[in-house]
Amino acid sequence: MMAEKSRSRGAGAIITLTTDFGPQDAYVGAVKGVILTIAPDVTIVDITHAVPPQDVRHAGFVLASAAPYFPSGTIHVAVVDPGVGSQRRPIAVESRRALYVAPDNGILTLVLHRDPATRIVHLSNAQYWLSTVSTTFHGRDIFAPVAAHLACGVPLDALGQPIDSIERFQLSQPVRQPDGSILGHVQHVDRFGNCITDIPLEWLPSDADTSIRVEIAGCQIRGLAPTYASVPPGDLVALIGSLGYLEIAIREGNAAQQLGISIDDPVVVQVV
Amino acid sequence: MMAEKSRSRGAGAIITLTTDFGPQDAYVGAVKGVILTIAPDVTIVDITHAVPPQDVRHAGFVLASAAPYFPSGTIHVAVVDPGVGSQRRPIAVESRRALYVAPDNGILTLVLHRDPATRIVHLSNAQYWLSTVSTTFHGRDIFAPVAAHLACGVPLDALGQPIDSIERFQLSQPVRQPDGSILGHVQHVDRFGNCITDIPLEWLPSDADTSIRVEIAGCQIRGLAPTYASVPPGDLVALIGSLGYLEIAIREGNAAQQLGISIDDPVVVQVV
Amino acid sequence: MMAEKSRSRGAGAIITLTTDFGPQDAYVGAVKGVILTIAPDVTIVDITHAVPPQDVRHAGFVLASAAPYFPSGTIHVAVVDPGVGSQRRPIAVESRRALYVAPDNGILTLVLHRDPATRIVHLSNAQYWLSTVSTTFHGRDIFAPVAAHLACGVPLDALGQPIDSIERFQLSQPVRQPDGSILGHVQHVDRFGNCITDIPLEWLPSDADTSIRVEIAGCQIRGLAPTYASVPPGDLVALIGSLGYLEIAIREGNAAQQLGISIDDPVVVQVV
Repeated sequence: MMAEKSRSRGAGAIITLTTDFGPQDAYVGAVKGVILTIAPDVTIVDITHAVPPQDVRHAGFVLASAAPYFPSGTIHVAVVDPGVGSQRRPIAVESRRALYVAPDNGILTLVLHRDPATRIVHLSNAQYWLSTVSTTFHGRDIFAPVAAHLACGVPLDALGQPIDSIERFQLSQPVRQPDGSILGHVQHVDRFGNCITDIPLEWLPSDADTSIRVEIAGCQIRGLAPTYASVPPGDLVALIGSLGYLEIAIREGNAAQQLGISIDDPVVVQVV
Repeated sequence: MMAEKSRSRGAGAIITLTTDFGPQDAYVGAVKGVILTIAPDVTIVDITHAVPPQDVRHAGFVLASAAPYFPSGTIHVAVVDPGVGSQRRPIAVESRRALYVAPDNGILTLVLHRDPATRIVHLSNAQYWLSTVSTTFHGRDIFAPVAAHLACGVPLDALGQPIDSIERFQLSQPVRQPDGSILGHVQHVDRFGNCITDIPLEWLPSDADTSIRVEIAGCQIRGLAPTYASVPPGDLVALIGSLGYLEIAIREGNAAQQLGISIDDPVVVQVV
Repeated sequence: MMAEKSRSRGAGAIITLTTDFGPQDAYVGAVKGVILTIAPDVTIVDITHAVPPQDVRHAGFVLASAAPYFPSGTIHVAVVDPGVGSQRRPIAVESRRALYVAPDNGILTLVLHRDPATRIVHLSNAQYWLSTVSTTFHGRDIFAPVAAHLACGVPLDALGQPIDSIERFQLSQPVRQPDGSILGHVQHVDRFGNCITDIPLEWLPSDADTSIRVEIAGCQIRGLAPTYASVPPGDLVALIGSLGYLEIAIREGNAAQQLGISIDDPVVVQVV
């Protein structure tokens, strides 16, 4: 089993957290306290707690963007959980690279698209939960203790029943149009207002630096630039971002705000 | 002494931080640098640094909500300190479960209400402070080094003089009214706009799911729901939150913003 | 070499992070994942990720304010990098107290003014970078792996070519005017709205508590107070802040907001 050769068990295990708990409440602290009570030697890493409330898709994008950079065997806990306490199942998923602990609400769709599940368990064994489980905070009462027990070497099988399928979103995907252009979408807007599309580098021609024209929010950008600093401050720039997707930015500005761009907005790439 | 059997001393000690220092300045970093200089092996956990400026009561609520989930012997540092440099005393408190290091301004009221103090010390021994102490940042100059020395095994007694009493707030408490209804108050509004009242589960009848009517901000909610997802998105819901108190929420919305609810606002529970 | 006697190498090394990556994206998580993959035992400390986008000077001030409190040999990574991917060089700097890893864009000006560089290296050896380097995220692809390799004991020399000079800002400096007054400037506004000037304690007369008059934003403040609590709530106060500079605050208020004060605004100290 992968995990036996990795960091995921015993001393040196890493647990990451991706949530919408925000910075100002006790929720993140309580989750960490629970983890450290069960697994004192684990390293806890915050990926983010600033997911907009209930925005499962934002969380999924951030997790999928950060997870590949963690050591093999890392345990990723993702809790954006509007259905907490309802029939949605708590799950743990093993992949080739990692373990994921989350509600079964699609939050793992993108990360598992890239790092496919090898085993999935419905977390049904209450022995690995806190002794009292609230109906409103499974992050603290189920997901944190389960992740900590995984970090201590409890096998996935012990945590519940194997299951075959879980909830998955429709992923944002670009399409090739009849005229040869690519119709993509904004899949994430980052802190800088940079608009990360769903169009991967591989879809663009090799001479994209000169041959493409990008249309977004009524603006046109000619050619793919190598860096933000390739254009003057304040200018629009299209480039390949750090995740390998076409990205639209304004140098030292905020493209999303200045152009009124939102998630799912269309982006068209013409090859000229 | 409790601490000798716990994580609070030597390798494996945990220090938590609850402050109003915010995310964008050097204050949190300086505190952590001081701690790690004195106690290199300590695990530092941020509970929150996003307490509204000078809001001692918010900090006290968050600390009291997170602290019970940490291992026995954890050292909790709470610094919201509008009186820094004045006559207010720096203190350390030992309880059955934990150690608390804070200014004596009431910030520990709620956490000590639930986890009573067994010993209190006025931090008067400057030997355990930084060699230069500013008048404006005791978090860095007094509380951080004291917590780190505690983590290294310095006994509480060495840090200063024992004292008997400290500042305490009037805690928010519900009252039973002549007509049998309960008059409570909003004691915290969380990131989601959920309004956490001071009415504990124990005050409600066992058939509260059907028998109560909750009145807040001119609205009425019939019955206690098990989960946020028990009502349609956008609807008001009353439930028992993760801290064991009656909580008012809007499913996938922000109850405090949408209804204009603030801290201390009244909540009435009628048994019908 | 300093680092051999310090925490900077092997077990117990500390890497701090000062960036403008913000809380809501995958950027911070990816950086931490890269570091922990290379240096599993390192302690990572966030100084801040809330630097305003591209505000190199804000980052430099925060880093210089926090760094002195970390153990000798700490590795400080500072990434506010509007020129990422362009000709600006990635650098590592050794000083008497620490190692700094950053883009060569002036971000280290203030910290190196106080803790002078003893060796500087242009990070030109791609062997210590991620195998694929994006043009938009050197924090993840160059600075994080370089810092982690330093933490593991890779010598500075191995990382690239020694260089003699790096970019430096003009630092904000007060001036003594012909009439004996001091003309300073606001160099930082903190979370509380406190305005930290560039006038150090040493420039003020020893009887400044009674003898000075501070003028800022059309207001006058008589005398230097020992603490925020020396004046009634809502009043302006001038004091020496925790960094050793003259600071203007409103007790339990926000001086910058209430008086409309910004970075670089003038502050005049008259000795009366």
